Order: sequence, then structure tokens, then C-alpha cells
Amino acid sequence: MYYHDKRLQYPVQVTEPDPAFARMLQQAIGGVEGEIRVCMQYFFQAWGNRAPTTKYRDMLLNTATEEIGHIEMLATAVALNLEKAPAKLQEEGVKDGIVGAVMGGENPRHKIEGLIHKNLLSGGLAAMPMDSDGVPFNMSHIYASGNVAADMYCNVAAESTGRVLAVRLFNAAHDEGMKKMLHYMIARDTMHQQQWLAVIEELGAEPNNLPIPNSFPQDMEDQQNNYNFYVTSLDGTYPEGRWTQGPTPDGKGEFTVFRNEPLGEEPILGPARPDSGAQAQQIG
Amino acid sequence: MYYHDKRLQYPVQVTEPDPAFARMLQQAIGGVEGEIRVCMQYFFQAWGNRAPTTKYRDMLLNTATEEIGHIEMLATAVALNLEKAPAKLQEEGVKDGIVGAVMGGENPRHKIEGLIHKNLLSGGLAAMPMDSDGVPFNMSHIYASGNVAADMYCNVAAESTGRVLAVRLFNAAHDEGMKKMLHYMIARDTMHQQQWLAVIEELGAEPNNLPIPNSFPQDMEDQQNNYNFYVTSLDGTYPEGRWTQGPTPDGKGEFTVFRNEPLGEEPILGPARPDSGAQAQQIG
Amino acid sequence: MYYHDKRLQYPVQVTEPDPAFARMLQQAIGGVEGEIRVCMQYFFQAWGNRAPTTKYRDMLLNTATEEIGHIEMLATAVALNLEKAPAKLQEEGVKDGIVGAVMGGENPRHKIEGLIHKNLLSGGLAAMPMDSDGVPFNMSHIYASGNVAADMYCNVAAESTGRVLAVRLFNAAHDEGMKKMLHYMIARDTMHQQQWLAVIEELGAEPNNLPIPNSFPQDMEDQQNNYNFYVTSLDGTYPEGRWTQGPTPDGKGEFTVFRNEPLGEEPILGPARPDSGAQAQQIG
Amino acid sequence: MYYHDKRLQYPVQVTEPDPAFARMLQQAIGGVEGEIRVCMQYFFQAWGNRAPTTKYRDMLLNTATEEIGHIEMLATAVALNLEKAPAKLQEEGVKDGIVGAVMGGENPRHKIEGLIHKNLLSGGLAAMPMDSDGVPFNMSHIYASGNVAADMYCNVAAESTGRVLAVRLFNAAHDEGMKKMLHYMIARDTMHQQQWLAVIEELGAEPNNLPIPNSFPQDMEDQQNNYNFYVTSLDGTYPEGRWTQGPTPDGKGEFTVFRNEPLGEEPILGPARPDSGAQAQQIG
Amino acid sequence: MYYHDKRLQYPVQVTEPDPAFARMLQQAIGGVEGEIRVCMQYFFQAWGNRAPTTKYRDMLLNTATEEIGHIEMLATAVALNLEKAPAKLQEEGVKDGIVGAVMGGENPRHKIEGLIHKNLLSGGLAAMPMDSDGVPFNMSHIYASGNVAADMYCNVAAESTGRVLAVRLFNAAHDEGMKKMLHYMIARDTMHQQQWLAVIEELGAEPNNLPIPNSFPQDMEDQQNNYNFYVTSLDGTYPEGRWTQGPTPDGKGEFTVFRNEPLGEEPILGPARPDSGAQAQQIG
Amino acid sequence: MYYHDKRLQYPVQVTEPDPAFARMLQQAIGGVEGEIRVCMQYFFQAWGNRAPTTKYRDMLLNTATEEIGHIEMLATAVALNLEKAPAKLQEEGVKDGIVGAVMGGENPRHKIEGLIHKNLLSGGLAAMPMDSDGVPFNMSHIYASGNVAADMYCNVAAESTGRVLAVRLFNAAHDEGMKKMLHYMIARDTMHQQQWLAVIEELGAEPNNLPIPNSFPQDMEDQQNNYNFYVTSLDGTYPEGRWTQGPTPDGKGEFTVFRNEPLGEEPILGPARPDSGAQAQQIG
Repeated sequence: MYYHDKRLQYPVQVTEPDPAFARMLQQAIGGVEGEIRVCMQYFFQAWGNRAPTTKYRDMLLNTATEEIGHIEMLATAVALNLEKAPAKLQEEGVKDGIVGAVMGGENPRHKIEGLIHKNLLSGGLAAMPMDSDGVPFNMSHIYASGNVAADMYCNVAAESTGRVLAVRLFNAAHDEGMKKMLHYMIARDTMHQQQWLAVIEELGAEPNNLPIPNSFPQDMEDQQNNYNFYVTSLDGTYPEGRWTQGPTPDGKGEFTVFRNEPLGEEPILGPARPDSGAQAQQIG
Repeated sequence: MYYHDKRLQYPVQVTEPDPAFARMLQQAIGGVEGEIRVCMQYFFQAWGNRAPTTKYRDMLLNTATEEIGHIEMLATAVALNLEKAPAKLQEEGVKDGIVGAVMGGENPRHKIEGLIHKNLLSGGLAAMPMDSDGVPFNMSHIYASGNVAADMYCNVAAESTGRVLAVRLFNAAHDEGMKKMLHYMIARDTMHQQQWLAVIEELGAEPNNLPIPNSFPQDMEDQQNNYNFYVTSLDGTYPEGRWTQGPTPDGKGEFTVFRNEPLGEEPILGPARPDSGAQAQQIG
Repeated sequence: MYYHDKRLQYPVQVTEPDPAFARMLQQAIGGVEGEIRVCMQYFFQAWGNRAPTTKYRDMLLNTATEEIGHIEMLATAVALNLEKAPAKLQEEGVKDGIVGAVMGGENPRHKIEGLIHKNLLSGGLAAMPMDSDGVPFNMSHIYASGNVAADMYCNVAAESTGRVLAVRLFNAAHDEGMKKMLHYMIARDTMHQQQWLAVIEELGAEPNNLPIPNSFPQDMEDQQNNYNFYVTSLDGTYPEGRWTQGPTPDGKGEFTVFRNEPLGEEPILGPARPDSGAQAQQIG
Repeated sequence: MYYHDKRLQYPVQVTEPDPAFARMLQQAIGGVEGEIRVCMQYFFQAWGNRAPTTKYRDMLLNTATEEIGHIEMLATAVALNLEKAPAKLQEEGVKDGIVGAVMGGENPRHKIEGLIHKNLLSGGLAAMPMDSDGVPFNMSHIYASGNVAADMYCNVAAESTGRVLAVRLFNAAHDEGMKKMLHYMIARDTMHQQQWLAVIEELGAEPNNLPIPNSFPQDMEDQQNNYNFYVTSLDGTYPEGRWTQGPTPDGKGEFTVFRNEPLGEEPILGPARPDSGAQAQQIG
Repeated sequence: MYYHDKRLQYPVQVTEPDPAFARMLQQAIGGVEGEIRVCMQYFFQAWGNRAPTTKYRDMLLNTATEEIGHIEMLATAVALNLEKAPAKLQEEGVKDGIVGAVMGGENPRHKIEGLIHKNLLSGGLAAMPMDSDGVPFNMSHIYASGNVAADMYCNVAAESTGRVLAVRLFNAAHDEGMKKMLHYMIARDTMHQQQWLAVIEELGAEPNNLPIPNSFPQDMEDQQNNYNFYVTSLDGTYPEGRWTQGPTPDGKGEFTVFRNEPLGEEPILGPARPDSGAQAQQIG
Repeated sequence: MYYHDKRLQYPVQVTEPDPAFARMLQQAIGGVEGEIRVCMQYFFQAWGNRAPTTKYRDMLLNTATEEIGHIEMLATAVALNLEKAPAKLQEEGVKDGIVGAVMGGENPRHKIEGLIHKNLLSGGLAAMPMDSDGVPFNMSHIYASGNVAADMYCNVAAESTGRVLAVRLFNAAHDEGMKKMLHYMIARDTMHQQQWLAVIEELGAEPNNLPIPNSFPQDMEDQQNNYNFYVTSLDGTYPEGRWTQGPTPDGKGEFTVFRNEPLGEEPILGPARPDSGAQAQQIG
């Protein structure tokens, strides 16, 4: 179960509110690389974790709980970027060409509201669980496969795209408070990337874990097609690289190259059944 | 651009059609771990690849093109599992309690149709781009971040959960033809896991690539919070592991432990604006 | 604006309630071939219709309004199929192997509830705006393009897949009341197919309307590639048919065959920008 | 920010695992009436709360944090209902007709896996953030309008449909541990219904708060149409009730009845623009 | 069944078309607070209504039918705001800084088309069933629980957030015709809020109806946890209010405060099954 | 199975990158009228095709394979429109009022990034499988009904709305390279419209195929209601046209007019069951 402290994980301050930046921050809340995703992903991985030990469940709970605080920080940042902005823009925005150009003249607030749409119309100048285009987060992005190694790679992927996004937001930020908040979040993403890779290492590192799942007897998979790079280019040329020769990362094979061709035949489905709603011509 | 051969990548044969297994195969077509996902993910990564070299684009195109053939194999397998089934079940299913029980008696076809729902009602006894619960695939699952290392981890994650699914399907399969098809697909998933990890290795392996993105000057991230495991448990206990001490996988830090506490203050949002549609009591 | 009569468009009677059939009927309510779709599609086409005459708007309003009554009939049919069923099944279902087999023994109601899921748990034994797999209808399926000929083909497509579905439901039905209701709906789908094709005819029939949109000067489209069938098979073989030779349906061209090959070059995107969150290796 | 205790909010015990019941419980996790919804709804209402006081924010944080523990309990219940079931069913299920009928004979595990689909195939016998039909939760169901009274009614609605669902699950449950867990959750839903209504009362009760938002000068709304019940029945009959006469709940009007008729004219849109992609016939 | 009159419910006139305002109006059509939602919600509640009386069904049909006319009014308003705008803007927009700033210069049509996206590209300058960010309406937002009191609170919630939205649109509107249309819609929302609360009153008011559902014997819920406010703050402090002491709104209890702590134990799931696709390390 | 050539189907060149146009092109990639849709639609129709002949399967494979190349062209066009733009805009955009107005002054890149949202934040300046509002493509739009005639009308509908969109994009384009690419795509849409209509002709033309499905004995549908236009207008007036008199397009009937009225009775559902979670007042 869970507890809260009403203070924030890390300071969130906005000196120059920027509604457009608020919308960009939404990607870090409800985008597929965002914080709702990692928070819920780690929770569902923890709650469904099966193993002889509870240590992975425990570790995941710590980080999942940490992530709630990240959503909270970002939601606060969105609200602060939306809060004072329109008033300020009305007074100063038109004067300098920068903001005024986007805002329009006579009644600037209308225009900015047009740009921020749902954060005003539906959320009342607050954060919403959606991405920067206003698309609500969809929980199918919570990956919790029941295989701890697969889950760790899902987590590395999540924190990698997450840190890429945080860096893009940092590069786009112009407010010192926002930069400070993001420099903290970027650091936490660094740690979380290390953390999930460390779990893989503790499980015995890649050779021990690959191919995932390692509980399937590997001699039952097709031995002719598990370590060869398929070339589908019409002329048979292909880009050479680490993936076309040398030992495979799992230490169990050698990369080779296969110029792809059909190994099966043309599939023949039976004609349509008389009562299947097909056209008469299909029933034949 | 693209070409086709009407023969299949690998043989797909079904001796004993099983509509329930058809529905399970749908997860491998339109599930989040399925083949539409990897096919489109590799294509979009290829089409948007930016680098001084085209070799990654080329490599991705080869594997993306290969994956179309996997969707085709699975779609064929679904159609074959649906094709003859009801007729057979009508004749034999009722006799043995096994299938008949699920099918119902008087008019078994009705019942099986009730179970397979959209594959009949909407698809006419064919595969559809949806998962095993009939949820259509959603293209937000195509991860193509513009960062090649992040993308490679996304691909490892996809092929890991994909091979886990293929193994589960193999374990559930009872038809020899289906097992053979799956033992091929499991092998290709093995190769693809190796392949994406090989790209990471070619890029300089993990220490060189981490943290992702490695193009952000790491001294700009918060140096106090980039290698410490946050403990959020109320009593401060935590699970020890590779993630709490020792060098980090990127070779750039040491894991430490931090008993989490608020570093920020309670956030204060301004009162609601008079014209914002809030209650009068909020405007204060 | 709109009025209602609380009587139904056509009688809806259920003698032998069947929860599994209720679930199948959901496809006709909230499936992509269902009645919510056509109702809303015709309304949005009407409300946005632009033309020198209001006759198409008027016609669409008549049929859109008719379709509300179809959703109502199906929703009623679902509720009636769910209403008495469990009680009856408890008493009689177990005795005959047919229904009992699906229901389970000791406490049959649990099992059937397990099968019908959301219609009970979320809807209280009533219809819901979702398909037969419980997927809610998504309004992106409302096609209203602003081009009346394109819209008419969308409508023919909707009523064609709709009648296919209605026929499949009729074939699966065993209750006389349900068959009667469906034999009416199938008839209305017949009429609506005719109706939309009649509009195309009134607009001047296909040669006059094709290609859609016919307001684009056709000599501005690529004259080398507008009437040739592209063959992408590796060996250049192709299926001959009406589409490979002879005059085209619009009466403006002749079908020819083109063995496809690249007409463009390999695309070269620039390297990643330094501040774009890419890996350093991509920036080059 | 947030803390956790790895113990559960309330005991979750399963004596007789039931995979079908596990699927039903999913509705309480990821259904529109489920716990993810209320948890995230209260958090987003808290994080975006604007008022001269922080008391509503604080109160919402307490209950949002409580709700994480409810998701955790249900996820645990799903995992426990899936955990031992198949093995047990294999041994005993076939013998009694009840479970065996649903399971099928020869290899019962296959069949039950067919029924539970994604919880096995995608989740590895664990809970997932989806409803009882496998539809992932969609974050657009998080209502946080920025108007505290509107939000309170959204919360009452959520806890009302939530308690209705919990009661249905209680009625369907046969395991004592599950009944005990649900009798606790039903009680918490009772409290939360009271709690949100209490907030409305503290804000000054309904007359003070209605119509929502109460910050819009009510004399600016149409005075002829704000307290009359519109009758759209063709024959003008209507059901009499509290809504057709007597003072309105806000104490500011009297209910009257209006036989509806058009107050506007037929809308005339201009013809299509020549460059708008319409058919030539529409441009006129 | 249903009838239509081609005249509008209420006049819809636009003197100064504004494409940005058209986009904002989309929120009232296809947003979660919009008119498609209430229209379909009332219809599905009516069609599935179970009670000894048909009066609630009848009442719901009247208001559902009224709401079709509201969607129609808004769709008309969107079309009118889009209709003449681009031409006008091309001629006059650039001259005044206001619109021109948003439009851009040389070729203003490009820019406005960029802003209005799908209403032009997909809808041909007409309304679409989507919200102000272009997200299509999702029918999972139709709440019809089968419990009439729960449904009434859902309806109050819908009309409350709906009126909040209408007020925000009114505040953003600058065209007199649009203000007039909205002042009518705001009035209807007032009536509908009263109407649903009146139903609750007619059912016996809150004490009689709470907790919802009132058909569950309340002594079967946990008597220790049904009227106490859970405090999850780490330091045990909490915001005092109507929800922490005094009689509860249902008149059946007294609010008390409980400093939350785990009442359950750490959950222990069994290890992964050998054939479940988990990693070997999890099977232990 | 499939092959690729890394050259493009047709040249894609961008002289003046335009991020706003990139966003518009997204509609042709991931919009409901876009290329992912037709590509996948033709593939699933091919893979599930049931008929005594494989010719339709073969034909569909050719065109489906062609369409992959169209997605590739558009994805390349999006990347090229995004690639150089910001840099150029920074240097030149501000100077001319046109672009600068949209971009803002001091730091124009921020603003354009705000407008293009996910293509940068999530995709790294590349195409994504979403529409012009950033809504991801949803695979429920793949229509493959198992009825070849219904599918052909679905395909005509897809290519008609697709060509309407391509024309709108052509009209909005200002770059010669983009116009050239689109004039090619418009031509291919022309061909594909002809092609699907040609299939219908080959199947025996409309009279032979209608009503769809033609395998249902038409004398089993309601003979009173299959060729009459329902008038739902309150005053009985209706728009006369090809749909109100004369022979029907299938050559099997005569259009007549029916002033609609209820043919059924008021539906009566039973009261709520005691254990169904309804209010006590509903159980009666």
C-alpha cells in the first residue's frame, strides 16, 4: 500500500510561463515515452512478478513509487506554464513580435486557447493524461510479460526513449526552472537505464539470458534459421556489419547470411462455405 | 519499393483445424508483441533513419521486409485453423466430450461462432489485424525514436516479448504443422534478438552508447541523482542487488542508495481565473 | 431537429433468450459494419453537405433518422436475449448437454456471466455501444469526406458489409423472432445499397463521376501511370482479368500492364541534428 | 511524492483459483468503472486543483494514494486466481462436468488458456491494465475539469458505477477470500460516495453550487429554456414526474413542459469550393 | 422510432467565420463532455432501462432525442465557421495583424489548412465526430450501468462538465451568432442538470438511494471501513472538512478518520510455471 | 513472401522544406484515407481470400505490395520536409513576415517544434504512423469481410477518399517536388478506383452481384421493405430523386416511397433482477 508527502520530489518552478511548452511537456506525461507509462509498467511488473524470490518485486515497487512523483512534477509544471501565461501575454506578448505573432492581436487569449485546446477546454488550464497532440494515453503500452528478462529490456527501451524525449524538452526549454527540473529527470532516466541493465547482469548477463525466454529448450527451435541474416533485397546485396558474421551476442552461434527465398508453397484456402455470407462466385 | 512471391516464407500446414488456436494466433498478428508491430516498426525506423551512413537503413529494410512474410504465414495459419473446423466439429466434436462440451450440442456451429466472434462475423473465417481478444492493433506501438540505440533496445524488447509469445503458442499447440511453423518463428526471433544487440555492439557496445542519448553532454544532468537507487519503502528497507552497489553498466558511475525524501516544496497553483469555468468558490 | 415515437420500427421478439446470440448481435450495434456507424455516417454527411441543392442533405437525413430506429431494435434484442436467460438456464440449461456444457454445472450463472462479461458487469444485462468482442465503437469510422460520390461509395461499402453481417447473424439465429427481425434488417440493407448506387446514377453514373473527385483536372495527373496494372511479382507473372486489358470503367482509358520497377532513387536523408536527441554516431 | 509498504492494504486470499473469475476482476482494474480510473482521476484533479485553499488538493491526494492500493489488491487477486488453477483443473476439472465442460478434455489447459487469452499470452498469468474483455484502459476516462463541483459529481458517478460493479463481482464470487476482499472494497466505495457528496455539501450544498459552473452569470443564459422539460414525442405525450413541475433542485426556477418544435431555420451551407476536392456537381 | 424536421432546434448564425473557433467547437461535438456522448448515453440508458415502470425510459427518450438536435446545431456551426473563412482571410486577413499573424503571408491558405487539419483534409470543411485535438469520440464513454441512480449521477456529471465547456466556449466566442447559440445550449445544460437531480429526488432523494446500489444489503459490507476517511500522508496530518466528522450524507453513519496502515500481508505469488515462457531463473 | 529494392517507387524531392506540409502529409500515411490502410486492407483481403480460383488473391497481392512503396514515399517526403526546415527558418523565416509570424521571433525553432509536436518529440523529425492531428492509425479500419464484392466496394471507397485527400494535398502544396510526387499518387489512385470497379464488372457487374451478399436467397428477406425509400420527415415531404422511383440498380425491383411509421410495439423489458446491482426501486 502507499503513502504520500504533499511536497514535490524535486523543485518545479516556472518564471516565464509558456503555454506552448506546457503542451510539449504533455508528451512526457501521457506520451508513449512518458511517465504514466513507466510508472504503471513497473507497478504491473511488480504486482505480477513470479519468482522464487521477492527481490525483483520489491525493487520494482521502489521505482514504480518513485515514478508517481515524476508524473506529479510534470503535471505541476504544465499547470504553472498555463497559469499566468494568458494574462502576461495579453499585456506583454503583443508588444514583442515573438509571442504576439502566435497569439494574434485584438484578443490574444482566444488564439492561444485555440492552440492549447483541451488543456483549457477540457482540463481548465491543467495537465491531462494525454500526449502533446492531445491523444489520451492508452494502457496497452504497459508491457509486463511475465518474463523478467524481456521486461527488463522493455524497461531499458522505455527509459531510453524517455531520456531522448527529456533531452529534446531540455533543448526546447528556455525557462531556468524548467531546465533545472529536466536536468533532474534526465539524471533519473540515466539511473533507471543502468538499473534495468544491472538486473540483466545480475541474472547472469546476456549470454546467460539469451535468447529470451531462456526456459525454452533451444534445440527445439529451427537450427537452420536461428543465426542467419535474411537478405530480401532483390539483387542480393546487403549491408555488412556485426550482424552478418562473427559470434552472436548470446555466445551460442555464428552470424551467417541467407539470401531469402520462399521455403513454403503458395497457400491454398478452401472455397467459401455456402452459409458464410460470401458472394456466390466464391463458393464455386 | 517492394516485390512479392506468392509462395510462403515457410510451410504452413494444419492437419487438425482448431478455432480456439486460431484466436490465440491472433495475438501474434495484432498483439502488442505481434508481427504487424515489428514489421511496421522496422519500416518506420528505416524510412526515418538519419545517419552519415545508409547501412542501418538498409539493414532495417531487409528485416522489415522479412516480417511481412511472417504476418502472411500467421494469417494463413488462422484461416486454415478456421477453415474446416466447424464441419469437422459437427461430425466428430460432439461425440467426444472434449470439443463438444465447448461447442454445444444441437447446433454446434452456433456455439463456436459465438466464441470466435469477429473472425467469423466481421472477417468471414479469416485473420484480422487484431489481438486474441479482438482488440485492433494500434499504431502508437510503432517505436521509431530517431535515436538508433534507443530503437535497438525497443527492437530487442519487441523480439523478446515476441519470442515469449511464440513459445507460449508453441506450448499450447497440438497440431504438428503449427508446431513446425512456430519452431521456425521462434528461431527467427532468436536471430532478431541477436541482430539488434549486434548493432548496439557495432555502435561501440553499452559503455559507449549509455546513457541514451549519448549526444547530450552528461555533465549537464544532475550529478547527485544519476547513479543512486531511490528507496521509497516507508521503513527504508530495500532489496540489495547489482543495482545498489558496484560500477554501473555504462562504466561511468557507482551505484549508491538514497532513502527518498522530498527535495521540493508543496506546489502552489494560483486560484482559478474568473472566466475559466471554475466554481465561484475556487476563484476566491 | 428530431422527434420520437416510443414504439419500435419493427417487432422485436425473443422466445428463447440466448446470451451468446446477444453478444453476436453486439457486432451489429457497435461493430465497424454496425448501425451506429451508418446512423452517424449519414448524419455527418447530411450536416456537412455542400452543394447547390439541399436534396442530398434531405435524403441523407431521412435515412440517418431511420437508422436510429435500427440501433434501438438491436439494443432491445440484446436486452431481451439477456433478460430471462440466466434464470432459464439455471433451471433447464444443465439438463440438456447443449447449453449446460457451456454454462458449467454447480453454479451456471457464474459461467455465463464470465462469457458475456461487460454486458453484465458494466451494462447490467443490456446492450452497449461495442462490438461482439467488447471493443467500443470508435467514431473515426464515420466517413464523411465532403465529396458526395466518395461518400456514396463509402455508404455502399457500409451497407454491403452490413448486409453480409446481417446474413451471418440470420444464419446463426435459431429464434424465430430474431430471424424475423433480421429478415427485415436484411431487406433495409438491400434498399440502402440500391439507394446509394441510385445517387451515383443520378449524379451521372460512373463515367461521369470517375475518377473521384471529378473536379480535379485529370490532365494534371500522371498520364503514364493512371491506367496500368502494376505487377510486383518477382517473376513478372500476374493474374489476367478485366483489370489488365480493355476499356476502363470510367470510359477514359485502356487497362495496360506494367512490370513494376523503381522509378526513383535511393532516398538520402541528412544526418541527425546535434540537438535532436539522436545518438552521437548518427550526427557524424 | 510517494512511499510504499510492501504489505497489502487488506488481505487478499484465494482458496479455489478460478481463471474465469480472474477475467471478471479485470473489469475492476481496467474497466471504465475500475480502480485505475479513480486513482488517476483523483490524482489529476489534485495536481491541477486551483483554489484559494489547498485543502481540496490535500484531500484528493489522500484518496488517490489509497486507490493505488486497491489496484494492487485486485492485481494480486487476478494473479492468485490464475496461479494454481490450470494444474488443479487438469487433475480435477475434467472429472466433474462443471469445469471440465468449459475446459475440454484431452488437454484442458489449452482450452482455459483459450478463454483467458491475453492474461496468459501477453501477461504470463498476471493482471493487465485492461477490462474483462481485454480492452486496455484509455486515459480519456480521467475526468478533471478544473471545476471542483463538476469533478465531485464525476467522482460520485465513478464510485457509484464502481460500487455497482463491486456488488456484481461479489454476487458472482464463490471463494470466501474473494468475498472478503470485495466486502472491504464495497465499504470503501460507500465511504467515497459519501466523501464526494460531503465536499459538495461543504461548498454550500446543491442550491449554492448549481447550475455548474456557478461562476457564469446565470442571467446570461437563455431565460426561456433553462427550466423546461422538452417533449419530443410525436404525439406530445410525456411521462410526468418531479422533472415536469415544482421547484427545481437549485431553488432558482420552476419546472415546466415544452412541446418541442424547431426554433431555427433549415441550415444553408454554401456550395463546395472549387479547390476543395468535392465532386464537380457540388460546386455548381 | 424517430422522425426529423429539417429546421434546426435553435438558430445558428455566423457573421464572422473563424476556423480556430470551429476547432474549439469540435470539443462540444466529440469531446468527452460533448453532445454525442450525452445523446448516446441517454439513448442506451433508455433502451436498456429495467424497472417496473416505463416512465424513466420515456423520459430518457425525450432528452436523448433532443440531444441529436444539439449535435446538429454544433455541426452546422462548425461548417459555417469553416465555410467562408479561407477566402475572406486571403483577402482581408493579412491586412490586419490579428488573423494574418496566424495565417502567414504569401499563401495564407496553406497555413490555415495546417491549423485545421482534418476538418479540411478528411472532412472537406465540415464537422467531424472528434474533439478539438482531432481525437475521434470513443463510445466507451457511454455510461449506462443498469442502475438508475448511478446513471443519474453519471448524467449530472456529464451535464456539469458539458456546461463548464459551453461556458468556456461562450467566453472564447466573439461572434454574436455563436454567443446566442451557446447561451441557448448553456440554458439547456442547466435544465438537464436539474432534471437528473430531480429524478434522484423522485426516487427518494439521497438518503434513500445511497449508497448506490441500494439493493445490496449494507450489513454485508465491511462495517469498520465504510465511513472513515483514510489518511495516507506520511506524517498523519490531513485536511479537516465535512468529510472528517459529522453525519454522512446518506444519514446512516458518522465520518471518522483513520490513519492508514496495511491491514494485509506481503503478497506471495508462486514461482513461474516451467511452460509459461518465463526466464529459467524465475522458475527456480 | 517479399523482397525490396532500396530505390523509391517514384522520385521524392523537396526543394523548400515545410514542416506544416509535413504534418498534412501525415494524413496520407496514417489517416483513415491513407496508405497504411489500403496496404494492409489489400494484404488481409488477399491472405484471407476464399474462392475456387486464386486469381483475386494474386491480384490483391500485387496491389498491396505496390502500396508499401507508397507509404515509403510519403514517409520520405515527411522526413525531407522536416529535415532542413528549422535551420532555414531560423535564418530566413523571421525576415519575411510569412513564416516568421507563425514561428515567433527570438527562438523560432521552439515555436515550430511546438506546432509539429510528436514528429519531433517522439519521432525525431521523421514520419510516424499517425494522421495529421497526431492520432495513431487504428487497424480496425482494415476492411476484409470475406465477401469479395463487399470488399471491392470498400476498396473503391478507400481509393475515392484517398484520391480526394491527395487532391487536397496537391492543392495545398507549393513545392514542385511535392506536386510531382502527388500527381503520381493521384494517378495511381485513379487506376486503383478503376481496378476495383473492374473486378465487380468481371464478377458479372452490379445486377449480378447485388444485393451483397448475393448468396443469400433474396426471397427470404422482407419483400415489403427491400425497395422502398423511408421518409422520416415529420410532414411527410421528401426529396425526389433516382431513389424514389424507377427500377433499382440491381434490376430486381422498383423504388417506391414509404412514409415511415412504427411497425412494432413499445418494447417492454422485465424489471431488474434482485442480484443485478440495480437500485431497489428498479426491482419492484
